[in-house]
Amino acid sequence: MRTVRTVAELREALGGAGSGSALSGGAPSGTVGFVPTMGALHEGHLSLLRAARAAHDTVVLSIFVNPTQFNEQSDFDRYARDEGRDARLAEEAGVDVLFAPEVSEIYPEGFCTSVSVGGRLTEVLEGAERGRGHFDGVATVVSKLLIAVRPDAAYFGEKDYQQLLVVRRLVADLGLPVRIVGCPTSREPDGLARSSRNVRLSAEARERAGTIPRVMAEIAERVRAGAEEIEPLRAAAAEALGRAGVEVEYLAFVDPDTLETVADLAAPTRLAVAARVDDVRLIDNRLLTPPDTKR
Amino acid sequence: MRTVRTVAELREALGGAGSGSALSGGAPSGTVGFVPTMGALHEGHLSLLRAARAAHDTVVLSIFVNPTQFNEQSDFDRYARDEGRDARLAEEAGVDVLFAPEVSEIYPEGFCTSVSVGGRLTEVLEGAERGRGHFDGVATVVSKLLIAVRPDAAYFGEKDYQQLLVVRRLVADLGLPVRIVGCPTSREPDGLARSSRNVRLSAEARERAGTIPRVMAEIAERVRAGAEEIEPLRAAAAEALGRAGVEVEYLAFVDPDTLETVADLAAPTRLAVAARVDDVRLIDNRLLTPPDTKR
Repeated sequence: MRTVRTVAELREALGGAGSGSALSGGAPSGTVGFVPTMGALHEGHLSLLRAARAAHDTVVLSIFVNPTQFNEQSDFDRYARDEGRDARLAEEAGVDVLFAPEVSEIYPEGFCTSVSVGGRLTEVLEGAERGRGHFDGVATVVSKLLIAVRPDAAYFGEKDYQQLLVVRRLVADLGLPVRIVGCPTSREPDGLARSSRNVRLSAEARERAGTIPRVMAEIAERVRAGAEEIEPLRAAAAEALGRAGVEVEYLAFVDPDTLETVADLAAPTRLAVAARVDDVRLIDNRLLTPPDTKR
Repeated sequence: MRTVRTVAELREALGGAGSGSALSGGAPSGTVGFVPTMGALHEGHLSLLRAARAAHDTVVLSIFVNPTQFNEQSDFDRYARDEGRDARLAEEAGVDVLFAPEVSEIYPEGFCTSVSVGGRLTEVLEGAERGRGHFDGVATVVSKLLIAVRPDAAYFGEKDYQQLLVVRRLVADLGLPVRIVGCPTSREPDGLARSSRNVRLSAEARERAGTIPRVMAEIAERVRAGAEEIEPLRAAAAEALGRAGVEVEYLAFVDPDTLETVADLAAPTRLAVAARVDDVRLIDNRLLTPPDTKR
């Protein structure tokens, strides 16, 4: 594995590999799969790396804690950073190139361009809670990384479901020549979605956090059994989460493509949750499928 | 010359040519030079095409009247369109691929991403007169075109000087692998900057429009002779333009790189003018160089 700090080194390391060459038919160094992360690698990231490793000749991992997508400075400051550990895990996972730039490489002096996905996709849920700037930060850095790495495919976890939709939208809108692959959320044995923020939970809070996936699983079960009314499900969930001391920011039933609020659960619906357990903010989501759903 | 309407056809026409391949060292079909235009080709565009033709194996011309960069619907509606004539001129100029997409190819249903260059570069001059949306429209469409064509170099006229700076900024900020080449403004025999809008001038208005470059040349001459004070130059210019019935929107003396207003003319300065002659809006600019300037 080669670790590079600049886009110039990255291009040099990748040589002719990547979308520019693959799309032209004659790929001198094969296809490139790319996993962009903020480090603090866990099993969720490793599952993305495995998917990339299985499909591509070259696997690139980026580790960049992007300051512009944090709405709270304290969250940015506390974000776990351990590049030595991450690099070992990456090497074990078969990463070929680790791109770990400094902030000044991504945002040099005088930087003033932003990529923004407008409309409902970025206004609701995380956009409403964290502010529009969050997704502008995500869209800008992902655009920059995709332009720098030029992968054939980039892998994102479904755990950040809204982010996945935003990335798909910007890639389609700008015409970036990359396939965006969404991978299933990796979960702890009790169902909690794996997240770099989980390590901040106390043992006691960690246990209570398990209520989130449990409540979501119950909702999914009732929808699979034919429940179509949202309000009874929401009330039961709020009650259970409140009892566990989980402070709900939103618990939303939305169209899986547009994130429009749905009126009932007759069609497949994405359940999205954001909640705080003590001072740790967690998000999760899952698809709700009514009986006899084709998809 | 091949005319293509979609990005897919464009990629097919270009095969392995372009920045992806050239940067990798093994360019199967050589380098690509790109001239993005809104059609209504005139000698100014042709000079860009000649520069591209001299430097590249493949020359791509795009013709796309971009609706999102017009601040007045009437200006968009009246913008001259004659693809047959443009195609003949392009072929004579040695263009290999003419990319002339429909609006729906560039902005399909649901499109909601924008690229925006912030800060002073887009706030002043044209940004102030036409609104911030103008440069967002320019930045977004230029990004899309550069991503679609993947040229090694793209050619822009210095006549739209602020636009040239905005494009340079976004290319640097996003890390798009393309060299931006600014080419000297092409001028009519009386000095009027060539523009697709010039044809809208009546014969009488066309004559009065010649006052703009004349006044600018006089200012340049006086600066070359050692004049450093701005206000006397501005007053004389305003007087001459007013006498010719040219309605000045701005006549600005700015730093050539940052567009900051300058206090005097001791260093090289960009003179930028926007004015209306009857109902036709014209812009122009030129460098003012004091005596003994190295650059």
